[in-house]
Amino acid sequence: MNVDFRTHPDRYRHWRLTVDGELARLGMDVDEAGGLGPWELKMNSYDLGVDIELYDAVQRLRFEHPEVKAVIVESLKERIFCAGANIRMLGCSPHPDKVNFCKFTNETRNGIEDASRTSGQRYLAALNGNAAGGGYELALACDHIVLVDNGSATVALPEVPLLGVLPGTGGLTRLVDKRFVRRDLADVFCTIEEGVKGQRAVDWRLVDEVVPTSRFDETVLERARELAATSDRPDSGPGIELTPLERERSDTEIVYRHLRVDLDRELRTATIVVAGPDEAPPDDGAGLVERGAASWLLATIRALDDAILHLRTNEREIGTWLVKTAGDPDLVVAWDRFLLDHADHWAVREVIAYLKRTLRRLDETARTVFALVEPGSCFAGSLAELALAADRTYMLEGGFSEVDLPDARLRLTGMNLGPLPMDNHLSRLATRFWGRDDALGRVEALVDKDLDAAEAEEAELVTFVYDEIDWEDELRLALEERASFSPDALTGMEQNLRFPGPETLETKIFGRLTAWQNWIFTRPNASGPEGALQRYGTGLRPEYDRTRT
Amino acid sequence: MNVDFRTHPDRYRHWRLTVDGELARLGMDVDEAGGLGPWELKMNSYDLGVDIELYDAVQRLRFEHPEVKAVIVESLKERIFCAGANIRMLGCSPHPDKVNFCKFTNETRNGIEDASRTSGQRYLAALNGNAAGGGYELALACDHIVLVDNGSATVALPEVPLLGVLPGTGGLTRLVDKRFVRRDLADVFCTIEEGVKGQRAVDWRLVDEVVPTSRFDETVLERARELAATSDRPDSGPGIELTPLERERSDTEIVYRHLRVDLDRELRTATIVVAGPDEAPPDDGAGLVERGAASWLLATIRALDDAILHLRTNEREIGTWLVKTAGDPDLVVAWDRFLLDHADHWAVREVIAYLKRTLRRLDETARTVFALVEPGSCFAGSLAELALAADRTYMLEGGFSEVDLPDARLRLTGMNLGPLPMDNHLSRLATRFWGRDDALGRVEALVDKDLDAAEAEEAELVTFVYDEIDWEDELRLALEERASFSPDALTGMEQNLRFPGPETLETKIFGRLTAWQNWIFTRPNASGPEGALQRYGTGLRPEYDRTRT
Repeated sequence: MNVDFRTHPDRYRHWRLTVDGELARLGMDVDEAGGLGPWELKMNSYDLGVDIELYDAVQRLRFEHPEVKAVIVESLKERIFCAGANIRMLGCSPHPDKVNFCKFTNETRNGIEDASRTSGQRYLAALNGNAAGGGYELALACDHIVLVDNGSATVALPEVPLLGVLPGTGGLTRLVDKRFVRRDLADVFCTIEEGVKGQRAVDWRLVDEVVPTSRFDETVLERARELAATSDRPDSGPGIELTPLERERSDTEIVYRHLRVDLDRELRTATIVVAGPDEAPPDDGAGLVERGAASWLLATIRALDDAILHLRTNEREIGTWLVKTAGDPDLVVAWDRFLLDHADHWAVREVIAYLKRTLRRLDETARTVFALVEPGSCFAGSLAELALAADRTYMLEGGFSEVDLPDARLRLTGMNLGPLPMDNHLSRLATRFWGRDDALGRVEALVDKDLDAAEAEEAELVTFVYDEIDWEDELRLALEERASFSPDALTGMEQNLRFPGPETLETKIFGRLTAWQNWIFTRPNASGPEGALQRYGTGLRPEYDRTRT
Repeated sequence: MNVDFRTHPDRYRHWRLTVDGELARLGMDVDEAGGLGPWELKMNSYDLGVDIELYDAVQRLRFEHPEVKAVIVESLKERIFCAGANIRMLGCSPHPDKVNFCKFTNETRNGIEDASRTSGQRYLAALNGNAAGGGYELALACDHIVLVDNGSATVALPEVPLLGVLPGTGGLTRLVDKRFVRRDLADVFCTIEEGVKGQRAVDWRLVDEVVPTSRFDETVLERARELAATSDRPDSGPGIELTPLERERSDTEIVYRHLRVDLDRELRTATIVVAGPDEAPPDDGAGLVERGAASWLLATIRALDDAILHLRTNEREIGTWLVKTAGDPDLVVAWDRFLLDHADHWAVREVIAYLKRTLRRLDETARTVFALVEPGSCFAGSLAELALAADRTYMLEGGFSEVDLPDARLRLTGMNLGPLPMDNHLSRLATRFWGRDDALGRVEALVDKDLDAAEAEEAELVTFVYDEIDWEDELRLALEERASFSPDALTGMEQNLRFPGPETLETKIFGRLTAWQNWIFTRPNASGPEGALQRYGTGLRPEYDRTRT
């Protein structure tokens, strides 16, 4: 398997992105023959390839188009909005493919909501025809849903009656937790294969309004302008062009400008080394825009994002990721100060939000993450989040005798205290010290202090401290042990331990909804030879084991 | 399969319950030969049968022993506390058995926490030796954990390294969300097969104290007395004896004094009819104690609890439960007024808490629940919670022409506004109108008003209203449709739609932890012929598919 997540509007096969002043249009026109596998993408149904383009478009709208205040998501096909995830694709994909696909599509929809909430770029879903399953779930991620009232167009979540699986791309969660659909009506809605249309769709809170065909285009435009009026984005550019992300790959390494990954297939580890800044931060937001995608921070986040997606999708048996940093912590701190001082500038806000989303992707990744804090590293502020995101952090006491590098240090900055919340809406520090306000207070008082291994251990910021004599052996033992465990048990364990404290729409989607969907995906009633996903489209009805579980 | 949940201390095979003034001791002494199936219950490991006795004991302590302010959970075997769920039992149980077993054990541990929080009956875990897996999870449900410091006794959650599954009886959740164990230490702890002992167990917050063997008994007693001192329970009895719960069963019906269940195996439905009060409420708490287990309310809750457990465990293919009531709503309202007026009395508090727990069991049941509000019914106040707990509520408009019964009515009381919170710690009304405070306010204003079908529909308290002409056909269609769906998809859908709003320890255990555990239970790495549960004890190591998912 080799999926590339890098794309560009010039190469899109399934979407058309157009910008006109404060409004953009994201038109879905899926190429039936453009699937990643042997399936036809009929009726604007989608697979991972279609969604990679959507993700790219959402990213570009934020960075390249500061002037865009509202985005209309529409279909370029007649009388059909989107039929959701392609069912034949789901039917013939092995279990890990299904799970990975759902995770990425969920992250993309969460990203749409983040664009609105964090960056004031509003999303409007213009449903010109049926929006079913993932098609309606895409609409649910938007701020406002307009459904055409043409006597036939419906919104529907037909997964339960039709496919024996869940509306797992946030559908069940957003119905009751975002749109506040009454739970009994949500139950009914999710069992009506043909969906709900017209006024009933409004009454049940499934859409915000229904509009006759004759007034559809005009109403959509009007609503988009109203949404744009609520935005605090700048009235004009320039934006930051997301120039092609360069990387070199071999069987054992992936190299970006500020990040490299080394694969050890025997130990089943990937070592991700993030390089610290090679430049001082700019003076202000305009300076950041001027440096564009080449700026250290944006280039680094893009590389990390791409590396996470690549490893998740294409390196399934690499179960443990080791995260390291290398560079000058003072320069990281200088960048953090820049971010905090200029957080109101649209571009600075975008970069912070992108770092937030990328760290959240790491939190939600089904891989063990260990951070290694070694001499010459720069786990400070924003980059210290990588250590706080890890399942464990190992820190070296003193130096390595053969190498002449500064001893390992940890340093917190204001970036660790709130601007980069996890999906539970708490900072990683607050999550780490959940229920222990005294411990959290003690650590917060250490902001801007350089901590050596003993101090970091005392502050409960690292898991284990070893000196040079033990370092290599202890690490190897830990990695061999980890590699010996059941990958499934590790995934479940990590998902439960990483998110203490409050749950949010996002944690519910990844923790509750996704877990149930994954369970259902493994069950013969869905995926067995007589299950619903296999039988769909054959004219045969699925045969179910009737045992309730 | 035919598991009976009714038992009595005189018949316990695995526990010894002793009461001495304000303290009780619950001693675990599992009979190796007393398993429900072909497995030996070595080292105080348990199966469903052991846990049924624990549940019975916890219930009796609350009702029969108002004077008991603290309970010491201990082992009667030497140097071993409890080895957790029996692994051979897990290995040879089909998937639905595993899931159902875990649900019941989770409910019992939640019940222990409820005894402390709601009823002031504190629990102390006295670990005289190793507490592993479910053994340690039982301790985690207690208020205080004392571990003997004898050089060998450990607490451990060895599920991940040993069995390829999760500590799924609340273990992962309680570590980080109750005991506030740091997530990286929790990660380490859950991978140490042999567990953690001595001071480290205290430092990591895994236990509250470690005590040398010589001072163990004395310290346990001292701590139990300290816990008792924080209780608001009465200093002396009398209690309410939980006399044998009588029921008659045939292949198609189960009959209790105030409740009956009719099974339709073709349509795969169980119709549960709860009878309203046959007596006015007592004058005060002492009057309730005097009536004892025969009082309408306590007898009804006990029957409902038993019916839920019986149907869940022994009637797996009965996928839809229809809940009806029959009786005088004014009498239900009178009972509700009694409960609200005397809520401070220990016995009244117990009855309310038991109703709360039983309704929560219904919320967490993997069956579709439809409430049918028909002529002659008494869906008022506490019994109206049955309708609010349902996935859908159907209400008849007008009467049935052949029967001479009062038209269907719904009535809310103060019991619907808070005393019976769901696992999300919201009332069922607040859950129903989550995010819609205006709608909730409108409904709260209807307390004590008799609502006919049109009014109940207007108040959004019911899902569908039909008149006599359509009633039977519409219901039959809905039931046939429901029976045609994948049972797994329904379970996942219901679990997601029933719990909008905040998540709590309880919803995390049932929604997040359980869902991941169920997924892992279905995976070949755990349950396949070469999986860890099958290979355990054979001397062979499991063979894992290394794909991370």
